[in-house]
Amino acid sequence: MLEFIPLLDKNNGVPIYVQLFQYIKQKIEDGTIPEGSFLPSVRYLSAQLRISKNTVDSAYQQLVAEGYVASRARIGLIVLPLEQPVLSSILQEIKHKPKVLLDNKAETFEYDFKYGDIDVNSFPHDIWKRCLTKALTNEPDLLLNPGERQGDIGLRRELMNYLFQSRGVNCSEEQIVICSGTQHALSLIIQLFSIGDRSVAMENPSYDVAQTVFNNHGWSIKPIRLEQDGIDIEQLQKIETKVTYITPSHQFPYGMVLPIQKRLSLLEWANQNSSYILEDDYDSEFRYQGQPIPSLKALDEEDNVIYLGTFSKSFSPAARVSYIVLPQNLIDVYNHTYVNYNQSVSPIIQKGLYIFMNEEHFTSHIRRMRKVYQKKHQTLINALNKYMGRHIEIIGQNAGLHLLVRIKNNMSTKDLVKKAKKLGVRVYDPSFYCLNEKEIEPSLVMIGFGGISEEKIDKGILLLQKAWFSNES
Amino acid sequence: MLEFIPLLDKNNGVPIYVQLFQYIKQKIEDGTIPEGSFLPSVRYLSAQLRISKNTVDSAYQQLVAEGYVASRARIGLIVLPLEQPVLSSILQEIKHKPKVLLDNKAETFEYDFKYGDIDVNSFPHDIWKRCLTKALTNEPDLLLNPGERQGDIGLRRELMNYLFQSRGVNCSEEQIVICSGTQHALSLIIQLFSIGDRSVAMENPSYDVAQTVFNNHGWSIKPIRLEQDGIDIEQLQKIETKVTYITPSHQFPYGMVLPIQKRLSLLEWANQNSSYILEDDYDSEFRYQGQPIPSLKALDEEDNVIYLGTFSKSFSPAARVSYIVLPQNLIDVYNHTYVNYNQSVSPIIQKGLYIFMNEEHFTSHIRRMRKVYQKKHQTLINALNKYMGRHIEIIGQNAGLHLLVRIKNNMSTKDLVKKAKKLGVRVYDPSFYCLNEKEIEPSLVMIGFGGISEEKIDKGILLLQKAWFSNES
Repeated sequence: MLEFIPLLDKNNGVPIYVQLFQYIKQKIEDGTIPEGSFLPSVRYLSAQLRISKNTVDSAYQQLVAEGYVASRARIGLIVLPLEQPVLSSILQEIKHKPKVLLDNKAETFEYDFKYGDIDVNSFPHDIWKRCLTKALTNEPDLLLNPGERQGDIGLRRELMNYLFQSRGVNCSEEQIVICSGTQHALSLIIQLFSIGDRSVAMENPSYDVAQTVFNNHGWSIKPIRLEQDGIDIEQLQKIETKVTYITPSHQFPYGMVLPIQKRLSLLEWANQNSSYILEDDYDSEFRYQGQPIPSLKALDEEDNVIYLGTFSKSFSPAARVSYIVLPQNLIDVYNHTYVNYNQSVSPIIQKGLYIFMNEEHFTSHIRRMRKVYQKKHQTLINALNKYMGRHIEIIGQNAGLHLLVRIKNNMSTKDLVKKAKKLGVRVYDPSFYCLNEKEIEPSLVMIGFGGISEEKIDKGILLLQKAWFSNES
Repeated sequence: MLEFIPLLDKNNGVPIYVQLFQYIKQKIEDGTIPEGSFLPSVRYLSAQLRISKNTVDSAYQQLVAEGYVASRARIGLIVLPLEQPVLSSILQEIKHKPKVLLDNKAETFEYDFKYGDIDVNSFPHDIWKRCLTKALTNEPDLLLNPGERQGDIGLRRELMNYLFQSRGVNCSEEQIVICSGTQHALSLIIQLFSIGDRSVAMENPSYDVAQTVFNNHGWSIKPIRLEQDGIDIEQLQKIETKVTYITPSHQFPYGMVLPIQKRLSLLEWANQNSSYILEDDYDSEFRYQGQPIPSLKALDEEDNVIYLGTFSKSFSPAARVSYIVLPQNLIDVYNHTYVNYNQSVSPIIQKGLYIFMNEEHFTSHIRRMRKVYQKKHQTLINALNKYMGRHIEIIGQNAGLHLLVRIKNNMSTKDLVKKAKKLGVRVYDPSFYCLNEKEIEPSLVMIGFGGISEEKIDKGILLLQKAWFSNES
């Protein structure tokens, strides 16, 4: 048991809980309370120090909030290593997640440049409803049967054709697994590698949800630097890893598209190193500039790529459907690992999607959405150039539903976000997605445009100009 | 690298692959090839021994099939410890899963006493379709939004009321998490305990799917003996474990109902030991005899029980919806662990279920199904008594949708299953669910009755009498 003998002075004006917090924090920082040790229980400490449980609790909460300790179910509060903030999802959340992202419900903004929203006005409500109703009517068995483990065979065949045509992926239906979202897909993939070193290489920064899923499964993450044109392959080559998670077609959040030469080197390295590449192709449907580059999976002659796709961006996040394309060499392992699992997406939703694809609504939807997002994208670029011109630099604008903007006014991202907020505009801090630093690059903000109207895009960017460059604000 | 110098004789009549298999098997059994080592690659060994890759592959496949080695993604075949067959889901599947369960698609039986099927004729197709259509029509937002992380608030409130009325569970909606099936629910729970010893205590035998999920997450399973009235609490008390998975209301597969005294001791032990009880209440809706016993969660004053329920038995496996009731003390950990996850069940399905419950179709459905299953249950018991009377013993018949029968004719379960199969009747081997032995009790068969008609129940049992007790067969 750790010994706690803080000098608590009730009369010095500093609240007792703050004094206690500062005492423990100091002891953690100077190593007196070592990493991995557990703090005494609230009850014990309150009795020992003769202060109220609430006081101890407040001090502990502050320690959690500042990332010194983390709560462990049933065991108590564990002291975390200093300067290694992504040990666990809990810690990651507390240290990395900007307050603004947690306040989802509390605050609404007139102009919200949120990433992840889709254009709601263009969604084919009636067609999708008709497909679902048709599924319900034509196939009463759907209402009673958990369905095939890997997913509806019709849906998998439609996906197989779609992936070949749109992403160059040449696979059979038996390589496809339908999942209920990207978190679920990642969890299933992680469980295929249940032995071995449990570490994954990831671009830094990278998709926060993927970080969390790996952390939640007890994996450690090896951060790999980004260069102008994507992941630093030389750094990757120096690292021992059997799994690399990457977003090559629109790096998340930076937005660069990995060039073909780098794709080939990456695949060659993976093959020599007997390593799997986990390709998250989350929003590759939407490209605005340059020649389309085939997915890694399309170039994957040696069967090293596990491909991940989702209907959340291309169709709707309400479907809760994503998919994996397994390499041939993992099919047996997959079948063994999940022999007595059921499919997790309701056959009703799957059959509805099958009908939607089979009747070619999906391809026309994608075509239509490409135009919608192309226009929004152009409006955004135009507004940025018109209002802030030389004072900004746009990054990662060739694809996807978001881009980054570097603001050349010597403000920190935190201040940029704060100033924008004052005028009712919400932009985001991309350092949220960093693996090991607080802010990799100051003055960078993330701007999503999927869910916001063209009119609001223009007005919102004008307000940002006021917030960041006019003297009034 | 292991040295392989088998003497392979092409002329002795034994196929080369069998000779190679026997050689390696012998070396594993005598310890020359130790546990944890990897077999050489097929390519390497075929070159070294100058035999075809197919021959090596056949020998390896036989080693896998007999549980000496298991396949590991990218690494090759690992030698498994002898006599410890539940190290991994892969192994478990190969050693424990009766062939008959893997042949799901290949074979159909005229009389299939399968566990897990529901009565399809009583399913309220039209009402459920109407609820889904209503959800689609009334709430267009459902088509666009991933929904609340823990699940639709209306559905959670309905569940809260239902669980209170039917299972005595007193919880708030913030303790409820909607999941896409029991595997998914277990996976989410397991990830809450990402540090610590990663072991779980389980009744032996127990639900195979739960075993697999724990195995797939790298957990070890500590088997606990069953007594006549359920889990052996004394044995449990001797074991160090922070998580115990249990099916108290209808032990799977034995079917006993844990008596109230044992429930109280279990909870007391959990509390003293700071251990969580994972209560899987999978089919408690259907009880036929005796007073209903409150769920463990209903008795859980000290907040030690994590409750798991599913709509697969009480409603339909096609909904792909299950739910967790978290203890209060895990809500924060849950929120931290899954802060950036989405809900995995489509809001469309959730809202449909909400409407189904809110319009009280669910309670009347349960009431109706209770009668349907009660009748089937009675038909089954009557037929068993009528045709096999003194020669059998019925076990675990107080609740649920299956029971076990001990057949007193000195046949092994394997033979019983085989003889039944010859007459077109499928019964199941409960040793499939064992954690560490091939067959804990000979002459025991498992009989499910949810999905088979009363007429077929009677005829099927008559055929079983012929198969097992008449001299002809």
